Amino acid sequence: MAEGVSSATSTEEMNGSGNLMDFLDEPFPDVGTYEDFHTIDWLREKSRDTDRHRKITSKSKESIWELIKSLLDAWSGWLVMLLIGLLSGTLAGVIDLAVDWMTDLKEGVCLSVFWYSHEQCCWTSNETTFADRDKCPQWQKWAELMTGHTEGAGVYMLNYFLYVVWALFFSFLAVSLVRVFAPYACGSGIPEIKTILSGFIIRGYLGKWTLLIKTVTLVLAVSSGLSLGKEGPLVHVACCCGNLFCSLFSKYSKNEGKRREVLSAAAAAGVSVAFGAPIGGVLFSLEEVSYYFPLKTLWRSFFAALVAAFTLRSINPFGNNRLVLFYVEYHTPWYMAELVPFILLGVFGGLWGTLFIRCNIAWCRRRKTTLLGKYPVLEVIVVTGVTAILAFPNPYTRRSTSELISELFNDCGALESSQLCDYVNNSNMTRPVDDIPDRPAGPGVYSALWQLTLALVFKIVITIFTFGMKIPSGLFIPSMAVGAIAGRIVGIAVEQMAYHHHDWIIFKSWCRPGADCVTPGLYAMVGAAACLGGVTRMTVSLVVIMFELTGGLEYIVPLMAAAVTSKWVADAFGKEGIYEAHIQLNGYPYLDQDEFTHRTLATDVMRPRRNEPPLSLLTQDSTTVEDVETLIKETDYNGFPVVVSRESERLIGFVQRRDLILAIKTARQKQDGVVSNSVVYFTEDAPQIPLSNPQPLKLRRILNLSPFTVTDHTPMETVVDIFRKLGLRQCLVTRSGRLLGIITKKDVLRHMAQMMNQDPGSIMFN
Amino acid sequence: MAEGVSSATSTEEMNGSGNLMDFLDEPFPDVGTYEDFHTIDWLREKSRDTDRHRKITSKSKESIWELIKSLLDAWSGWLVMLLIGLLSGTLAGVIDLAVDWMTDLKEGVCLSVFWYSHEQCCWTSNETTFADRDKCPQWQKWAELMTGHTEGAGVYMLNYFLYVVWALFFSFLAVSLVRVFAPYACGSGIPEIKTILSGFIIRGYLGKWTLLIKTVTLVLAVSSGLSLGKEGPLVHVACCCGNLFCSLFSKYSKNEGKRREVLSAAAAAGVSVAFGAPIGGVLFSLEEVSYYFPLKTLWRSFFAALVAAFTLRSINPFGNNRLVLFYVEYHTPWYMAELVPFILLGVFGGLWGTLFIRCNIAWCRRRKTTLLGKYPVLEVIVVTGVTAILAFPNPYTRRSTSELISELFNDCGALESSQLCDYVNNSNMTRPVDDIPDRPAGPGVYSALWQLTLALVFKIVITIFTFGMKIPSGLFIPSMAVGAIAGRIVGIAVEQMAYHHHDWIIFKSWCRPGADCVTPGLYAMVGAAACLGGVTRMTVSLVVIMFELTGGLEYIVPLMAAAVTSKWVADAFGKEGIYEAHIQLNGYPYLDQDEFTHRTLATDVMRPRRNEPPLSLLTQDSTTVEDVETLIKETDYNGFPVVVSRESERLIGFVQRRDLILAIKTARQKQDGVVSNSVVYFTEDAPQIPLSNPQPLKLRRILNLSPFTVTDHTPMETVVDIFRKLGLRQCLVTRSGRLLGIITKKDVLRHMAQMMNQDPGSIMFN
Repeated sequence: MAEGVSSATSTEEMNGSGNLMDFLDEPFPDVGTYEDFHTIDWLREKSRDTDRHRKITSKSKESIWELIKSLLDAWSGWLVMLLIGLLSGTLAGVIDLAVDWMTDLKEGVCLSVFWYSHEQCCWTSNETTFADRDKCPQWQKWAELMTGHTEGAGVYMLNYFLYVVWALFFSFLAVSLVRVFAPYACGSGIPEIKTILSGFIIRGYLGKWTLLIKTVTLVLAVSSGLSLGKEGPLVHVACCCGNLFCSLFSKYSKNEGKRREVLSAAAAAGVSVAFGAPIGGVLFSLEEVSYYFPLKTLWRSFFAALVAAFTLRSINPFGNNRLVLFYVEYHTPWYMAELVPFILLGVFGGLWGTLFIRCNIAWCRRRKTTLLGKYPVLEVIVVTGVTAILAFPNPYTRRSTSELISELFNDCGALESSQLCDYVNNSNMTRPVDDIPDRPAGPGVYSALWQLTLALVFKIVITIFTFGMKIPSGLFIPSMAVGAIAGRIVGIAVEQMAYHHHDWIIFKSWCRPGADCVTPGLYAMVGAAACLGGVTRMTVSLVVIMFELTGGLEYIVPLMAAAVTSKWVADAFGKEGIYEAHIQLNGYPYLDQDEFTHRTLATDVMRPRRNEPPLSLLTQDSTTVEDVETLIKETDYNGFPVVVSRESERLIGFVQRRDLILAIKTARQKQDGVVSNSVVYFTEDAPQIPLSNPQPLKLRRILNLSPFTVTDHTPMETVVDIFRKLGLRQCLVTRSGRLLGIITKKDVLRHMAQMMNQDPGSIMFN
Repeated sequence: MAEGVSSATSTEEMNGSGNLMDFLDEPFPDVGTYEDFHTIDWLREKSRDTDRHRKITSKSKESIWELIKSLLDAWSGWLVMLLIGLLSGTLAGVIDLAVDWMTDLKEGVCLSVFWYSHEQCCWTSNETTFADRDKCPQWQKWAELMTGHTEGAGVYMLNYFLYVVWALFFSFLAVSLVRVFAPYACGSGIPEIKTILSGFIIRGYLGKWTLLIKTVTLVLAVSSGLSLGKEGPLVHVACCCGNLFCSLFSKYSKNEGKRREVLSAAAAAGVSVAFGAPIGGVLFSLEEVSYYFPLKTLWRSFFAALVAAFTLRSINPFGNNRLVLFYVEYHTPWYMAELVPFILLGVFGGLWGTLFIRCNIAWCRRRKTTLLGKYPVLEVIVVTGVTAILAFPNPYTRRSTSELISELFNDCGALESSQLCDYVNNSNMTRPVDDIPDRPAGPGVYSALWQLTLALVFKIVITIFTFGMKIPSGLFIPSMAVGAIAGRIVGIAVEQMAYHHHDWIIFKSWCRPGADCVTPGLYAMVGAAACLGGVTRMTVSLVVIMFELTGGLEYIVPLMAAAVTSKWVADAFGKEGIYEAHIQLNGYPYLDQDEFTHRTLATDVMRPRRNEPPLSLLTQDSTTVEDVETLIKETDYNGFPVVVSRESERLIGFVQRRDLILAIKTARQKQDGVVSNSVVYFTEDAPQIPLSNPQPLKLRRILNLSPFTVTDHTPMETVVDIFRKLGLRQCLVTRSGRLLGIITKKDVLRHMAQMMNQDPGSIMFN
């Protein structure tokens, strides 16, 4: 660590366990830790890890036992990954099973085994066709169970009423648990995890308690039928697992930098289990969540993501032996001309993304600033009530959103019995299962189109009010649902046009009568990708996740076209994705990857400003203990620069407030003769002083002799780059060796926000 | 740009096109360019791009035309990607077709259409079975054409002789073209591209001439039957395409930093067409090749890789409408117990990697230091001769390596007629095409095993001597071939064991008689991944490329197990992959991503050392033009620090040698009164001087006022981190504001090499 480095110059002197280590061995217990809501110093964490590693390596040569310990230390990273994969895969499986059961519980119960979901209950039934199986006698709706009737207005109303009651019960339970036990368990968690990974400390956010409550309330929230998904919260859950296992190994628990490497991998595992897409998960972590992502982490993340995905598959919650959430297989290729509707879906996705982000942020701001924020439980109850009341009558909103998406993605096979597949069949047609030609839509399809349109409007509106409430809520599934509905509608429209107008020029070249030209399910998938892209601004990871769902490179081009269009359209209205918008709304100190293109200099940003009091600093050999204590009392800075003298202002180092407080406290308690007017020395050797003077206090060991400096003429774009890439907490500003001021991460963020408001258009097309 | 920043302090002053821009508009034509074999300064390139961007943005508000220009500028990145994708896809297709034809030309010719390969020639033949088709009358072997006979020792010898002659002719042509026209076209190119991407300038390495010659000689080299592949060189070709299209847009041609973003994407496109694996290509570029890879580049790389892959597919060189080089589809799952042979293959891959790297580097070093290096043409001729003579008798080495790998990867279907699939069939067995149970091996399989063993030894030895010769040569295919042969042998062994010993405990649980338990093709694939991993130390990208080849998540676990094992085994013998080893062999200034864990400080590395002459520096107001010219003449440093005065040694800036030379030259020519004893001023205002004194020369505009500094106490691990992350060229060392010395990238590299040699074991398990 920089603070402990002595002035030794030859390497031989330093390879022993010399005075370099004394700082680590010294008695201050809390040196090097951070306070809550503070930013970590990445360079310092890295140095500390290197020191630790050096210590272990040099010890490992001493004995076999130490060698084994050093090997264990080297392998602990992989062990943590394995544990994260196993636990997050298991939790995801349990969540899936529980959600399945409880979602169906709103409608009815399995008489034979009450903890079976509708599908599991009827699986072993004797009925052979799919349609009959859905009505197996073991499964009874509530009204049927109570009244014995299966038809009639009264039965419908009773089922309706019980559906709403169950929904209200689940959501009330969820919001209460969050309120009482773990306030951090609400929301999707991704904005906070992004901030934490960028080097911010939020104690308890990834704690055991949050893990437990988030898992339980996630099941409740999803089961209540609210317009939310489990994907974002699963990332949070996986990160909690990561944090839990970090605490088992001092390598990770004692180093905030190393801990963040593990958390990045855990985020990948979270997405991996959410979609069954391990590669997509790793890319999501790389692209969207992580801040510092060395190659070693990439490899380990991949491992964790794979373990998690295979753990989930061995639990097999969907009962189909498939890894992915929405497994689809299409049998027809797509045609160039179809790129037009795909790009239109991209435009829709971009517009939806913009609309959603603006409205949701406005509503969340309202929640923060008005009385609304005071009644989170009531808010959840009201939204759940409205959702349940509006959702029940429409079969496409009554069921769970992932089932809906799954149905929309699916191509209509020959055996499909759903309303969406109610096409007019040519009776004398021989039907190969894989290759059904385009057919005219039957009445079922038309009524489904109406219901889907209503569902689309409903989803669009309700999702805006749902995301941000005090319950766990992910955005992926609702966004994908909006896109999938829109896509399926467009897909059916194109299909029917192509069927009825084979002779139009646009169809002539690729769609002969009797051919299977258009796959409406593919349109649903493209629409889902576009909408998800518009909201989150994911790019590569989005396409890869979708690719992993279909497993065919064939459909990458439509997905890519829609994703690119959606991102461009959405970016034209504002660069921020929903996560960045929430980070900004909450005021987290997150330095994003966008380029800073203004022409300001370090001197414009540093403090003190022209009319502020001078910088609080210490001198190397003329400050007394009392002076230091006064400085600590009167200011709340995180640290103080140390200069040669107030006249020359030549910088020699930087000392952390926390270390200073601890050092003085320890010295006052343990070191005889240190009194208020003892002089504090930061020099290498304290001069000989007369015995009559009080004992001096030597503090060079807590002095960081290599503080980061820039000159006052450094352009802010360079300063921003340095802060971002090196993960600095603060940086001192000098001119020809004289200390002028200091720039902290918060100063940088404040300046960036200021410049952004001044000239928002200038970075639009960068 | 830092050099041109004036001391303006308020943002309003700077938003106009004030004096900040004067440096860009000034008359020195070459300011800001780099010399050959020099390192670029990433921070400076980035600043320059931001300046350019700012200029365009501010102009875009002036008129519609400027707005259109700014939009074009913003979209030029995508346009370049599209062009790279199209050209590299096309070139890859042409190379594939030409290689196909010329490889077959060594054995015979198509009589109907002479530019058809064997397969194309017989495709339209009337013979119906695959075996007969191979012997279609349109295709004649050379001996048959000349003598009219198809059998006999004389015919065999004549074919043998002509095979060797063609091989020698092709390789002679290849090496001559490389020698005469483009010496940079040799080798795989990946080590050099890694170095270039890390910020080194090698003029002409990615030039048009190299592109042309590398494309042509790659075809010749692969067709000659040498043990080399086209994958590495395809990356080089794609990067040449990237560089070519960069020159169309000043945004990229004038900025070495931006150019490297394009080149990273081009590398992804290269791997994408080499394997038909766009996602793998992007990850390869990210993991293995690129140095600076912002998210924007990730997205664009993906686009370029996709365009390239689809261009290649529309050319369809393999005639099977498949994107991937080795398309395989397996029908049986793998079993837990099989992980043991997979891991053993991983160990083999790691050992092969180590052996190959050590031997190849030793041989290349020998080539560099002995007379051997003087006769590159002769070397190629001899190696080709030996290869051809030894390869012809063995059917597995006679054909092209990619065909061999393709056959080894394939599962034996029911219709397979090759020797490797000569199993003893149960005559009364009903045969579904997909699910053939394990069968006892026939005599063909046993002879194939012998031939494969010989081929394995031959490939292992000859590849060591081939890689590094003065012709284009990739390593992927030979490495994969070694692994695939070994894997197939192991696979057949396990299969036969399982068939004959169903009752052994290890097989009992998963392999009943009559079941299809073992897929030898999968073993070949796992072996190929292990060997490729051992040589290149790729991790995620390797698994993803292999995953894209099979398209099933199923087989990721075996691949991952082998890749992890192989990397661990190989890393235990030395951290470097083949590319890093070649970079080091050639002495390129490449700062790799490994962590630096030694305890040295900046003061140990900086120059001047204790007994060296003092640092060459300039003072801000007391150096004359003559002094500067002497300094330039006597030293060859890239730049000089400027201090307040020699007494105080307080640093005010840094001036580039190149800029200084240009400035003085221009001033001497154009500015009246500037003579040898004119004083050079770096201060803001030159003082009023008597008229009798010569006119002063003001050079503040070329002074970089924000040079990067660290203190002498900064640990080297931090310095290395800063150099790596910020892409610095040099860094000044100060102590309490006084300039002590300078550290350049070369000093850092030299120091790292020195520390590595001193204590090679300490970073092994990091």
